[in-house]
Amino acid sequence: MADPTFFDNAGPKRLDELAAFLSAGLFRASPDQHVYDVAPLSHAGPDHLSYFEGRRHLPALLASKAGAVLVSETDAGEVPPEMAQIVTKSPALAFARVVGLFYPDATGFAAPCAGFAVHPTARLAEGVELEHGAVVAAGARIGARTRIGAHAVIGRGVAIGNDCIIGAGASLGCALLGDRVIVHPGVRIGQDGFGFAQGPTGHVKIPQIGRVIIQDDVEIGANSTIDRGALIDTVIGEGTKIDNAVHIGHNCRIGRGCILTAQVGMSGSVTLGDYVVLGGKVGVADHVEIGPKAMVAARSGVTRNLPGGAIYGGFPAKPVAEWRREVAALARLARSKGRAGEGGV
Amino acid sequence: MADPTFFDNAGPKRLDELAAFLSAGLFRASPDQHVYDVAPLSHAGPDHLSYFEGRRHLPALLASKAGAVLVSETDAGEVPPEMAQIVTKSPALAFARVVGLFYPDATGFAAPCAGFAVHPTARLAEGVELEHGAVVAAGARIGARTRIGAHAVIGRGVAIGNDCIIGAGASLGCALLGDRVIVHPGVRIGQDGFGFAQGPTGHVKIPQIGRVIIQDDVEIGANSTIDRGALIDTVIGEGTKIDNAVHIGHNCRIGRGCILTAQVGMSGSVTLGDYVVLGGKVGVADHVEIGPKAMVAARSGVTRNLPGGAIYGGFPAKPVAEWRREVAALARLARSKGRAGEGGV
Amino acid sequence: MADPTFFDNAGPKRLDELAAFLSAGLFRASPDQHVYDVAPLSHAGPDHLSYFEGRRHLPALLASKAGAVLVSETDAGEVPPEMAQIVTKSPALAFARVVGLFYPDATGFAAPCAGFAVHPTARLAEGVELEHGAVVAAGARIGARTRIGAHAVIGRGVAIGNDCIIGAGASLGCALLGDRVIVHPGVRIGQDGFGFAQGPTGHVKIPQIGRVIIQDDVEIGANSTIDRGALIDTVIGEGTKIDNAVHIGHNCRIGRGCILTAQVGMSGSVTLGDYVVLGGKVGVADHVEIGPKAMVAARSGVTRNLPGGAIYGGFPAKPVAEWRREVAALARLARSKGRAGEGGV
Repeated sequence: MADPTFFDNAGPKRLDELAAFLSAGLFRASPDQHVYDVAPLSHAGPDHLSYFEGRRHLPALLASKAGAVLVSETDAGEVPPEMAQIVTKSPALAFARVVGLFYPDATGFAAPCAGFAVHPTARLAEGVELEHGAVVAAGARIGARTRIGAHAVIGRGVAIGNDCIIGAGASLGCALLGDRVIVHPGVRIGQDGFGFAQGPTGHVKIPQIGRVIIQDDVEIGANSTIDRGALIDTVIGEGTKIDNAVHIGHNCRIGRGCILTAQVGMSGSVTLGDYVVLGGKVGVADHVEIGPKAMVAARSGVTRNLPGGAIYGGFPAKPVAEWRREVAALARLARSKGRAGEGGV
Repeated sequence: MADPTFFDNAGPKRLDELAAFLSAGLFRASPDQHVYDVAPLSHAGPDHLSYFEGRRHLPALLASKAGAVLVSETDAGEVPPEMAQIVTKSPALAFARVVGLFYPDATGFAAPCAGFAVHPTARLAEGVELEHGAVVAAGARIGARTRIGAHAVIGRGVAIGNDCIIGAGASLGCALLGDRVIVHPGVRIGQDGFGFAQGPTGHVKIPQIGRVIIQDDVEIGANSTIDRGALIDTVIGEGTKIDNAVHIGHNCRIGRGCILTAQVGMSGSVTLGDYVVLGGKVGVADHVEIGPKAMVAARSGVTRNLPGGAIYGGFPAKPVAEWRREVAALARLARSKGRAGEGGV
Repeated sequence: MADPTFFDNAGPKRLDELAAFLSAGLFRASPDQHVYDVAPLSHAGPDHLSYFEGRRHLPALLASKAGAVLVSETDAGEVPPEMAQIVTKSPALAFARVVGLFYPDATGFAAPCAGFAVHPTARLAEGVELEHGAVVAAGARIGARTRIGAHAVIGRGVAIGNDCIIGAGASLGCALLGDRVIVHPGVRIGQDGFGFAQGPTGHVKIPQIGRVIIQDDVEIGANSTIDRGALIDTVIGEGTKIDNAVHIGHNCRIGRGCILTAQVGMSGSVTLGDYVVLGGKVGVADHVEIGPKAMVAARSGVTRNLPGGAIYGGFPAKPVAEWRREVAALARLARSKGRAGEGGV
């Protein structure tokens, strides 16, 4: 499922060879059955290997069109009959290892330009302005009148639209940008997301083979970081404005016209509807969804889904009136007791 | 009001042309009246266009010497009689568009050095040391014995004093630095502040035409970000020490000898008196003033003005004894109830 | 005690000259006694000068093998008889000044490569890949098959192991890295820690002469910052994974296999045992120790030592069940009062 612009697929791989590599059992495979790629259950087709771990993904397993699946012995009975099975103790760990087989070069991102700053295969439209030291790697495409700041690095295959401004020292990899995008200095786009499987001797890196999609008129503040997706894409919607030092984890899907104030942090796989506003330093836990036009007060921590069209605050974030009542109630309580703090900080 | 060292003024502009550009009405203008620049009400003179939106700025309007003002129909009656008026539904939005007319190149910051790392018009004093890849743009001035780290980028017109150290990969634009300033690697100084007006189809960028003034003996930690002012300057006072990953928004005025610990975040237009100490991760809301020698405990959120000479903590930040009482009272309350958390996180 | 790979020692210094430089009294020195270096009490030997300030360090003073010590008049009686004394009002401030005498170039870190990107004295093993603009300074050593990203800066004497990936625009100084380390774009390693002594006219910088030791299989997320030690080293243990925008202060000792999620902030001299997990935005106060396999929930603030093998949350961080009870108790209290918040935010 990885975009070949950014990642070279070392497949196909025979299922029996994969099973042997994993020291795992293979069931229901046709003779000589191959898979051509890896994919999550929801996106996989007959040529793809996927994995199942965690009962909450059962509906996805049952609906999946994957040709083969990594599964534990316990869960093997749940696998649809037409799917080949590789049975292994830790499917997530095994999947991480198989992704590494298919995409051995997917760690970090490359801007191979030794000997020149702009690779001969890069395409620059009319009016592109490159400041001193700008690096444009193989296959990258830069739209008309876009300005690439001094020492900015545009990785392999990255596409940038028209009238964009890329700040000094920024780095972009595995990314597609629309028009009129402003990326301020020091922004980091498209590095590996933070994903590990638990192995017998420590954390095993899950290669990250998704992309970053940045739509038109997005602005991204200085030193912010946007990781590329693990298997799917990280997406920033049209017209969204992101302040300095914001962190956006892998697989996040940010709607259109959102405002993310400085030092906001989004864990992986967060979904924001359109026109969401997050105040400074807000943190959002992984897989949380925040509905359109929701506003979250500065310093809140969002741990559960929040419906759109309302204002929230506190930690865990709740409707702002509730949070204010809590703040007031605690202040009253402390005054009424009036004793010096034994639990002091 | 923009410093011509950093921004090219495309004015003057005729008021009737500006009104036509905005599809707005023009009142009380003399025939052929021009404005030469834009400015906030407090700084504007007879040659400047300003804007009025928000009743709290009424004293500034009444005291202003602006030659012309953007104003809503509702507020037009408040405008002093000698001031020309451009009447528009959303003065802030109209002002953003006019600033863009006057300063079409004010987005991002430029270090135009194509073909050479140090622009021929840059001036380097004796003993300046440039590490590999250091970029010094047109009109920049570097003081004696200052060291510019590898791949650091010094933008157009930036002035740096004597005996400074600029770290590897840092970028400085629209900035004036005093002597003995230490800027650690990856610091971002002088990029656009985070300012938008609400337009009919989304957020409209307000061009940021202020500067960053950094006085003598300031130290700025790695990957910290200091935005330039919107219309006025962002100022860091003499001897202030800033740790890593601190964010300082546009128009902040930080006093002398302050200590800002790692990951502090300051919204726009914050004022700190001299010798203020902010603990790690403290956040300060926009337009807040903190008095001299105030200390704010780590992780606090400052939402209102705080008098100087005292210690504060919590969110919203309050005198530290009150906050400690709250922490203790809550711990006691939870122990006395002793039930498992239904509001759990 | 500084590693001569990174810092040039301007010593030895005669004790009587140091006392004169500090306008301080010298006692119990042998005629013509020299010190060759500076060191903390715990690490000092007969050729070293150390300092004593703060009664909690008394055991370290009594056990120290330092040849000479800076001490206040009040504390002079505590000094072991065989140690020479320089008696001064503020030993910490005096020590900062003496460190500056021994190591006048210890501010910032240098990558002196003017005229070439890779210094002739740097050693690159087989299969090293340098992307465009990578800078490798004097005496640096890069291991086999390691990739240095575009515009990354490897400072003087830095050693990087085999099969590492250094991201675009990262900067590394005063650091030793093991094998298979991944450093993402924009990471800052080895800049000065945030240390100041209080002088009569403001904050006096304490030169930072420690290093950063990064063991095998560590991964460090984009735009994270790791400061070098003040007098000892900052250490990141084998297999530890660090997310984006994490700050690690000087002298921290992070165990093996830890997980530090995005925007975590560690003050100076924090110790983490092996396999500690810190959720997003966790802050840890200076000198705190967290035991092995402890887990700390996102957004917590750790102010005291925490035993290993348990889960913590809140601010100040406490056992997670206690914290959840507090969250629930406060929600109940606010509901039972049910009045609009007077202490609102």
